[in-house]
Amino acid sequence: MPQQNPVPAEAVDPSGIHAVTWRNGRLDLLDQRCLPGETRRIACEDVDAAIDCIREMVVRGAPAIGITAAYAAVLAARHRLQVDGENWLPGYRADLARLSEARPTAVNLAWAVRQMLAAAEAGDGADPEAALLAAARRIHAEDIAMNQAMARLGADLLEAGSVITHCNAGALATGGLGTALGVIREGWRQGKITRVWVDETRPWLQGARLTAWELAREGIPATVITDSAAAQLMRRDPPAWAITGADRVAANGDVVNKIGTYSLAVAARHHGVRFMVVAPTSTLDSGVADGDAVCIEQRDAGEIWAAAGGPTPGADAHNPAFDVTPAGLVDALVTERGVATPPSKAAIAALNDR
Amino acid sequence: MPQQNPVPAEAVDPSGIHAVTWRNGRLDLLDQRCLPGETRRIACEDVDAAIDCIREMVVRGAPAIGITAAYAAVLAARHRLQVDGENWLPGYRADLARLSEARPTAVNLAWAVRQMLAAAEAGDGADPEAALLAAARRIHAEDIAMNQAMARLGADLLEAGSVITHCNAGALATGGLGTALGVIREGWRQGKITRVWVDETRPWLQGARLTAWELAREGIPATVITDSAAAQLMRRDPPAWAITGADRVAANGDVVNKIGTYSLAVAARHHGVRFMVVAPTSTLDSGVADGDAVCIEQRDAGEIWAAAGGPTPGADAHNPAFDVTPAGLVDALVTERGVATPPSKAAIAALNDR
Repeated sequence: MPQQNPVPAEAVDPSGIHAVTWRNGRLDLLDQRCLPGETRRIACEDVDAAIDCIREMVVRGAPAIGITAAYAAVLAARHRLQVDGENWLPGYRADLARLSEARPTAVNLAWAVRQMLAAAEAGDGADPEAALLAAARRIHAEDIAMNQAMARLGADLLEAGSVITHCNAGALATGGLGTALGVIREGWRQGKITRVWVDETRPWLQGARLTAWELAREGIPATVITDSAAAQLMRRDPPAWAITGADRVAANGDVVNKIGTYSLAVAARHHGVRFMVVAPTSTLDSGVADGDAVCIEQRDAGEIWAAAGGPTPGADAHNPAFDVTPAGLVDALVTERGVATPPSKAAIAALNDR
Repeated sequence: MPQQNPVPAEAVDPSGIHAVTWRNGRLDLLDQRCLPGETRRIACEDVDAAIDCIREMVVRGAPAIGITAAYAAVLAARHRLQVDGENWLPGYRADLARLSEARPTAVNLAWAVRQMLAAAEAGDGADPEAALLAAARRIHAEDIAMNQAMARLGADLLEAGSVITHCNAGALATGGLGTALGVIREGWRQGKITRVWVDETRPWLQGARLTAWELAREGIPATVITDSAAAQLMRRDPPAWAITGADRVAANGDVVNKIGTYSLAVAARHHGVRFMVVAPTSTLDSGVADGDAVCIEQRDAGEIWAAAGGPTPGADAHNPAFDVTPAGLVDALVTERGVATPPSKAAIAALNDR
């Protein structure tokens, strides 16, 4: 029998999907632009390649972007040590500042970069790359563990019935089972979930392309609908819960997440469908008072026009990538440290202090 | 100067778009599947070609389908007279029954077919085709006049500000200026409307492809958004009104319209944005008590998957073409005979009796 390594060289993604890995000394990403048709991987040799991959959405999902940034920070350190020698830290700080700005809305990116910078500054200088790789692997392993903890806590809230989800908050968006899809995987395993309704999630179709793919490969019944069909579904055949991830949760519990999350939350409240947000505490940002203080990334209008085969001459398109769901529309915020029902300012502060 | 024909051979579409016309003894349709990239026309020689065009959405929009059916009934009569001679009516009735079932949800199709059958049965037999063509032209001309009346009545309700619309209820969906877009055209002409937000309208993209094209060609500022972005827009920069057409209005005022209309109405109510439905009385169906009694057409899942480049293996898609907006979410129903604010059962009955 092959001997098992007592301390795994890599954090092990229990989904087997490996959206983000470290392989052969490089950052290795599953190209999510090509799914589900093609499973192509991209290896990044330096931090700028990683920044491009984050901007172009080769990798997306707040926790997965955080893990990507952690490994990218290892690449940055390697390069700076080669180029600047002992005086590598000033250039490294500049690299990490650039990395931190690759996408503006999700907070996990800046959070991971801060962790890596702290690890670099705390190092004794003997082998910075090895120390930083250990720090990145710790961030990755922690994400996997947090996913598992959230899956159990979230599934405890479920009873038998269908659920609806928006965007992709699965293995493709994290290091492990996913946030919302972690709860859904566990709810399915426990026999509580009968069907998953999947918003296609315009304009990038994370639901139709990524979430449907993740669920189908595990045999979980997944039915894709257009985003605007969710309200009618809730009126005629209501799911027990709507379950999403988050890109940032403000101090007051407002949830910033993929465009359409707010629309789904409004429809859920109108129909008495409960709304669950699943996000690790790395997604909580006590630095912003409420969701309206968060910068909402505006993406290229071409993402909208692509489905129609190109722009309609003379018309504009407006493509905000995220929206803000006020805390009052969220029934439960599930973190790895516990559940806030509902996510009030006090409940969020208690989770942060735990 | 060219002499004007005192009695125009065709009803004149004031938009200049001519989604449906009668030309050279044939039904002539603008192929809406190809817009905005290409303006291709399809000429139908017989009723079955017209049925195919309705099913395949060469022509769509409840009033435009009604006018198409009226002209298609002329083609059916011509064929039956040729084949069956004097005993043409039994076969004609069978043709019209088939035509009536081309699409199930919009009521204007069945309404127009009933008008044409009544005209055929009332005829003296001298020249049935000429009599039926006159009846079809009357239906077309009446639609144009109804559009103009609704445009004025609806615009009276507007004040200065932006509006949002869903799907296409314009010249492409009617014989003339459109229902919702008739009101918007008139509101723009009067200087009340500052901008039109256009839901892209998944899965068929009537908003991004058709409404944006109609508005842009007249210089009316049009900005396309994904359907799920409407709620966030209403929260941050609320339009004064949401304005849509209807495929059928039940006796109690429930509105059956393009999937996503209900989602928009729920979001509008949540944000205090008023909701206007514009539909001629040919769209009122006193034969159905409420919206839930209306058959909702389920279309092929391929319409959803097309945007993602094909289906995700192992996942289903559910593609209802219409939804039901309860009367209680509608602030104003504008018909050519007057406005119901709100569209109660009594108000609808009064419009029907007017």
